[in-house]
Amino acid sequence: MVDRIERGGGEHLDEFALIARYFAPLATDAAALGLRDDAAVLRPPESQEIVLTCDTIVEGVHFLADDPPESIAHKALAVNLSDLAAKGARPYVYLLALALPAEPQPAWLEAFASGLRELQREAGIALVGGDTTRSPGPLSVTVTALGLVPHGHAVLRLGAKRGDRLYVTGTIGDAYLGLRVLRQPAVGRDWGLSEEDLAFVVDRYRRPVPRSELVLPIRNFAQGAIDVSDGLVSDVGKLARVSHVGAVIEAGRVPFSAAAEKALRREPHLLPTLLTAGDDYEIVAAVPEASAVAFEAETQAKGVPVSLIGRLEGADTGLRVLGPDGKTLELDRTGYTHF
Amino acid sequence: MVDRIERGGGEHLDEFALIARYFAPLATDAAALGLRDDAAVLRPPESQEIVLTCDTIVEGVHFLADDPPESIAHKALAVNLSDLAAKGARPYVYLLALALPAEPQPAWLEAFASGLRELQREAGIALVGGDTTRSPGPLSVTVTALGLVPHGHAVLRLGAKRGDRLYVTGTIGDAYLGLRVLRQPAVGRDWGLSEEDLAFVVDRYRRPVPRSELVLPIRNFAQGAIDVSDGLVSDVGKLARVSHVGAVIEAGRVPFSAAAEKALRREPHLLPTLLTAGDDYEIVAAVPEASAVAFEAETQAKGVPVSLIGRLEGADTGLRVLGPDGKTLELDRTGYTHF
Repeated sequence: MVDRIERGGGEHLDEFALIARYFAPLATDAAALGLRDDAAVLRPPESQEIVLTCDTIVEGVHFLADDPPESIAHKALAVNLSDLAAKGARPYVYLLALALPAEPQPAWLEAFASGLRELQREAGIALVGGDTTRSPGPLSVTVTALGLVPHGHAVLRLGAKRGDRLYVTGTIGDAYLGLRVLRQPAVGRDWGLSEEDLAFVVDRYRRPVPRSELVLPIRNFAQGAIDVSDGLVSDVGKLARVSHVGAVIEAGRVPFSAAAEKALRREPHLLPTLLTAGDDYEIVAAVPEASAVAFEAETQAKGVPVSLIGRLEGADTGLRVLGPDGKTLELDRTGYTHF
Repeated sequence: MVDRIERGGGEHLDEFALIARYFAPLATDAAALGLRDDAAVLRPPESQEIVLTCDTIVEGVHFLADDPPESIAHKALAVNLSDLAAKGARPYVYLLALALPAEPQPAWLEAFASGLRELQREAGIALVGGDTTRSPGPLSVTVTALGLVPHGHAVLRLGAKRGDRLYVTGTIGDAYLGLRVLRQPAVGRDWGLSEEDLAFVVDRYRRPVPRSELVLPIRNFAQGAIDVSDGLVSDVGKLARVSHVGAVIEAGRVPFSAAAEKALRREPHLLPTLLTAGDDYEIVAAVPEASAVAFEAETQAKGVPVSLIGRLEGADTGLRVLGPDGKTLELDRTGYTHF
């Protein structure tokens, strides 16, 4: 707990100067009141519903202490944009609550703000408020994101139906490989990964790509959707459970990157881990058979690869994962939980 | 970082069971989707603007490690409700992001949830979402609160005008005394405080009372308002600065509780500290002369005491605090800042 004279000059950067210098330029929406107030005032467009989501990332849990500040900022915003995309909601505005373990350095803050700036420009979202506090603990970043969706068109976890096809975007398991490589660099060579592969998987861990381009195809064709944060199997399980259906995932159809394919060739026993490790921030969509062709065409038009990985069945099926041999794969765990 | 099997049984409480058991009962609004999704879907009433605010409280900074869990929860929500009240916004819904340092115990969670339950019932606000994570650091609680106000009627910091009267609700400085007593119990006797006084000031520190009853008087009569979190002088200074006016506070008119009056009689040099220590969560309202009678009558009707403590002047006045003798009081600091 540090007391300072509020308007203390010199090189010391107080909370208000910090906000004005680094964060006010990100507050491009009038609702933010230039961050000179302690609240934002929004006038949401009529006939739209607001989708609200909130995720915290903590040093040592969701990112590593020596991750670049740009990527920490990117990840904090990206994981929330990923939630909005899974709901078919267009990004609108966000708030940022930063708990900083030490007096922040200008270079760190500049890099952190640039990570937000880049992603918010891509995503079409603006900062409207938040809070900056000193903490005796690790760096912690909480983003609350608001999205917009026309009345009644939000895609929920619970709308999926028996018979729906299960699609997943992008590739699965890269972030796990990236985290392993960061913690234990030698492992990348055991897996036969090139320098390019190593950079790719690390980037997938640090800078997840929210699938915001798919907001419309998801909204138009998915009956249920979820983003993959805790693990593909676990998150499909959640979708199925709240929709009161069962699910079958065919591991042989799950999309892997070239880097992950290399690792799997050397160490086939990694398969269950990649299916359950999480941090992918890809989206699983449950799409009725009749809409499958249109969904595939629209996602292709947006340039985002999607793969059919399974199907929803009756609730009595539970959650089954079939191995490449067609037999049920027994998993020790389905995903990551905090406790 | 603890990995657990998601549906692990026994007495271990995973993240999902924790949410279902302790927090889902607080999610009384349909928008929350029973907290079984990772986002809420709101349909705000037409012709209303949304006021958005977000504050984090961290153990060791905003509350003490051995504060009761009820009061930690109360404070996390109260400081956000205080922001809404200062904007003239009616409480609507909130999100809760909890970073927990250890596997939480059922008794702790039950007490924490009861603190939220009680205050949300009083305030007429409901939980709609959030996030629960494990953290290697101290307990940290971030609340994002949404309030409603008719289009164009939000009360901002920046609307105050030269000539406005400055009012403050309740009493100032009690929370500082409470924190001092918790840290250094002997000090209470030096100040001549009774057991009742001690309990009162501790409660003022732990359980700030958001002035939600004053939403309408503030909306109807204040041109600018701010809640007192960083210190009365500092927060009046912020209001004046963004409104491009100066301010004079008469220390002799600042309202103190009976406990604070006792302490001030024993230690008159505490006066500047009480004016600048913060954590009061009272509201300063800038009210035009012509509305003063009506504002006083409406606040009295709501049963919340307000005191006239000064006036806004031209910008060239800057920020002045007059001592009880009418001379300018020199202050070492105007309030609390985090850095």
